[in-house]
Amino acid sequence: MKKNLKGFLRATALVTMSGSGIAATLAVSSAQAATECGAKPAVPAHHVIPANNETVHWGYFSKVRKPQAVVHSGDFVTLETLTHHANDDADRMVTGDPGAESVFKWSKTEKGVNRRGAGPVDASILGRGAGEGFGVHVLTGPVYVCGAEPGDVLEVRILDMYPRPSGNPKYKGKTFGSNAAAWWGYHYNDMIEEPKPREVITIYELDAAGGEDWAKAIYNYRWVPQTDPYGVVHKTIDYPGVPVDHSTITKNPGVMKDIRVPIRLHFGTMGVAPVEADFVDSIPPGYFGGNIDNWRIGKGGTMYYPVSVEGALLSAGDSHAAQGDSELAGTAIEASLTGVVQVILHKKQDLAGMAIEGLDFPLLETDTEWVVHGFSYANYLEALGEKAQSEIYSKSSIDNAMRDAFRKMRHFLMTAKGLSEDEAISLMSVATDFGVTQVVDGNWGVHGIIRKDVFSGDTE
Amino acid sequence: MKKNLKGFLRATALVTMSGSGIAATLAVSSAQAATECGAKPAVPAHHVIPANNETVHWGYFSKVRKPQAVVHSGDFVTLETLTHHANDDADRMVTGDPGAESVFKWSKTEKGVNRRGAGPVDASILGRGAGEGFGVHVLTGPVYVCGAEPGDVLEVRILDMYPRPSGNPKYKGKTFGSNAAAWWGYHYNDMIEEPKPREVITIYELDAAGGEDWAKAIYNYRWVPQTDPYGVVHKTIDYPGVPVDHSTITKNPGVMKDIRVPIRLHFGTMGVAPVEADFVDSIPPGYFGGNIDNWRIGKGGTMYYPVSVEGALLSAGDSHAAQGDSELAGTAIEASLTGVVQVILHKKQDLAGMAIEGLDFPLLETDTEWVVHGFSYANYLEALGEKAQSEIYSKSSIDNAMRDAFRKMRHFLMTAKGLSEDEAISLMSVATDFGVTQVVDGNWGVHGIIRKDVFSGDTE
Repeated sequence: MKKNLKGFLRATALVTMSGSGIAATLAVSSAQAATECGAKPAVPAHHVIPANNETVHWGYFSKVRKPQAVVHSGDFVTLETLTHHANDDADRMVTGDPGAESVFKWSKTEKGVNRRGAGPVDASILGRGAGEGFGVHVLTGPVYVCGAEPGDVLEVRILDMYPRPSGNPKYKGKTFGSNAAAWWGYHYNDMIEEPKPREVITIYELDAAGGEDWAKAIYNYRWVPQTDPYGVVHKTIDYPGVPVDHSTITKNPGVMKDIRVPIRLHFGTMGVAPVEADFVDSIPPGYFGGNIDNWRIGKGGTMYYPVSVEGALLSAGDSHAAQGDSELAGTAIEASLTGVVQVILHKKQDLAGMAIEGLDFPLLETDTEWVVHGFSYANYLEALGEKAQSEIYSKSSIDNAMRDAFRKMRHFLMTAKGLSEDEAISLMSVATDFGVTQVVDGNWGVHGIIRKDVFSGDTE
Repeated sequence: MKKNLKGFLRATALVTMSGSGIAATLAVSSAQAATECGAKPAVPAHHVIPANNETVHWGYFSKVRKPQAVVHSGDFVTLETLTHHANDDADRMVTGDPGAESVFKWSKTEKGVNRRGAGPVDASILGRGAGEGFGVHVLTGPVYVCGAEPGDVLEVRILDMYPRPSGNPKYKGKTFGSNAAAWWGYHYNDMIEEPKPREVITIYELDAAGGEDWAKAIYNYRWVPQTDPYGVVHKTIDYPGVPVDHSTITKNPGVMKDIRVPIRLHFGTMGVAPVEADFVDSIPPGYFGGNIDNWRIGKGGTMYYPVSVEGALLSAGDSHAAQGDSELAGTAIEASLTGVVQVILHKKQDLAGMAIEGLDFPLLETDTEWVVHGFSYANYLEALGEKAQSEIYSKSSIDNAMRDAFRKMRHFLMTAKGLSEDEAISLMSVATDFGVTQVVDGNWGVHGIIRKDVFSGDTE
C-alpha cells in the first residue's frame, strides 16, 4: 500500500465487516440497504470486507444477493478476494487461512458455500453440484452504493492490490497461484502431444511481500478424475472448488526451468449486477463488466461501469497474479489477492459533457491509457434472449468482438474527446492498438487502447 | 543513423546503385545474378538502393523480377522507400524529389512505372490501369542474396530507419504522410455520420530530422472522383498513385487539434518473393512476410523469413510513420522512409538447434520481445489454390488468424525454448500477449508477443 494512501485511509472512518458483523448488520436486501444509507457523512468511510463463506458469492452475479457493505460515493473499500482454484493445492492455498477454509470447506454432509454457479441449486441438470458450476468465480460482495440507479455510472479506482499470503506456516511469506489449462481453453482440441486431450494444472509461487516482480512455476500435474466429498466424480474440471486429492496425481517438479512470469496483479472479474436475470453466470463478461480478464485492471486503474440496478451492487474476485492477453489456456495464474478501491458515483444527470457520457460498456482508465472493451456481444444477455447464458458459449467470436471494440472506441473518441467521425477513424488507424483480451469466457473480448499523451491538451 | 553504425558502415565497401548503374549492372535475371556473386569478400559491402522508377516494383512480389542488388550474407543495404500515397499531396510528397518524381510521373502518354499490381498489364478486367491495382505498395528491390535457396531462412536486421525529407523547398526539413480511410477499411460499411460511405485522406506532418517523436495532422479532405492522366475516372481509391487534383477537393485545415500521434517508423511491407506465382498481389501477407503491417518491424527489429526461391529476393516498402494495431481504416501514416538493413543467410543444414529451426512463418525479434505472426491462412497462396489471390479477400478472419498465431507461438516456445507442450500452453496463458495486427489486408493478422526477459537464462 502506498504511504499516502495509508495516511489517507487513516483519516477515514473504519468499518470492518467481519463475518458476524455482516450477519448482524448486512444480512439485508437491497431495499433494506437503501434505508441504511442515511445522509452522506463528511468524512469518507473505509469499509473492509474480508473473504469468508458469508461475504462471498460463488459463480454468479446477482441483483438479489444481499449487500455485504453499504457505502457512499467517495468511500473506500478493502476487498479480500479468494481464487476459486485454491483447492488445486489446498495445502498451499487453503490450509491455515480461516477465510479460505470457511469457503472451501466441503465434508460428506456440508459445503462452506453450497451454490457454485448460476444453475439450479438442486443440480437437477448435470448433477455436478448446487449451481452446476455455470459460473466459477469466487466473488466478494456485493457493495451497495447509496443513491446509485440505472443510468448512472460507477467509477471504481483501484488504489492498491497485493497478494494474500499463504496461511500455512510451512509457506510463510509466499503466495501461490494455479494455472489450469482446462477443457474450456482455446488449445484444448488442438494439441500435438499425447495424451489428447488433457487438463494440466501448474502451480506458481510468488513473493507475498512483493519484493519480486516475478512468479515461478514449482510443479505441474495432469488432472485425473476426482471424487468430491459428496461422491460425485469429476472427470474434468467441471465444478469449481473440487478438492484435488494429491495422492491421486503425479507431480512434475522443476517445470518451466529458468522461466520467470512477470507479475500483473489484477481482478479478472469485477463488475456491477446485471438487471437481466436474478442469477447471471460469472463467466461471460458484458456491459456490466464482470469477467473481463484484462490484466490492466489492477493497481492504478480506474473502471467505469454503467449501473443497471439500484445500489449498483459491485463485486470483485477471480484475482490473478499474471495473465497474458487472450488467457489462452482458460485461466491466468489464479491467486488470492486483496484490493483497495474507492467508489465514486456519477449520476445520470451529471454525465453530459463528461468522457463517460452515454457509456454503455465497461471502460478502463490507467495513468497512461484509455481502454475500451469489446465483446462478441456487447450485451449478450439482451441479444441472445432467454437462453442467453447457454447460447453465448456457441457464439464466441473474436471477429465480432473486434467489431464491437471498434464501435466503442469510436464512441469514446467522439464523446470524450470531441472528435468528428473522420478524425476518430484516422486516429484509430494510426494510434489505437487493438488486442485480444480473452478467448475463453464465452463472450470473447477485444480491447482497444489509446494513449492519453496523444491528447496533448490533456492535463491528466 | 546511430554513430556506431555510421562508423561501421564506413568500414564497408560502398556500392551505390544509381538508376543508371542498375541499368548497366543489374538488369539481370536471378540466374544471371547468381553468376555475379563470386566469392564472399572479406569485408561486408554496403549497398545503397535509391528509390526511383527503375529500382521499384509496384503492387506485387515477384520471383521473376530482376534483382536490384546482389549481396552476400552479412552485407548491409540502405533501402530508400517511397509511399504509394505520395500523390495524395504531390506538392508535399513528390515535387522536388527526383526519385519520387520518376516513380509518380504520369502524363497523357506515359507513366514512370506502368504496372501497378499483380493483375494483367493490359488492364483487361476492370480497366483501372496496368496491373489493375491488385496490390498497391511501392517496393524497392528485390535484393538477391547469394547462396539463398528454398528451405533457408533469411535474417534481416533493421539497423536504422529515418524519414525522407520533402524535396520541395517550401517544406524544407519536413516529412509528410497520408492516412487514407479507404473503401477497404474496417470501418467503411459501418459509419455513423453522413455522407455514407466516404473515403477520407488526412495529411500528417513530421519533423524530418527526428527531433520530435510525434506527427500532427495538418488537414483532411474527402475523396472525390479523380480523372487520371489517361482519362480513367477513379470514383474511389481503386488504383495506386492516381494524382489528386487539389482544385477538386475541399481541404479542412486544423483537424485533430491538439492531437499528437506517436511516431513508429516501420516497414509496412517487407518480405521475400513467394514461389507460388510469378506475380503476387502485395496486399495479403503470408509465410514470406510481405504486408504484415506490424509497427514493431522498425529500427532495432530483426525479421526472419523462410526462403522459397533462389536468392531469397528481398523487397521492402509501404513505409509508415505510425500505425496502430489493426490499421483500422486501411492505411497507416503512409510516409516515405529510408531503412538500413543487414541481411544474414541461415542455410537449411545449419538450422538444427536454432530458434528458427523449422520456421515456416515470418518471425520478429526485437531487443525485448519475440513476435510471431498468424494470419487467416498461414499460406493462403497454397491453401486457396489457383484463385487464391482473389479468394483471400472473402475469407478474412481474425478468429482464424488467432488460431494460426497460437500454433506458431506454441511451435516457437517448443522449438526455440525447448518447452514441453504443457509448459508452452501454460506460459502462453500467463505471459503471452496476442494482438490484432491488421484487419485490412485480406489475409488478416494476429500477432503473439513473448517478452525475452521471461527466459531469465537468456543472455540476449
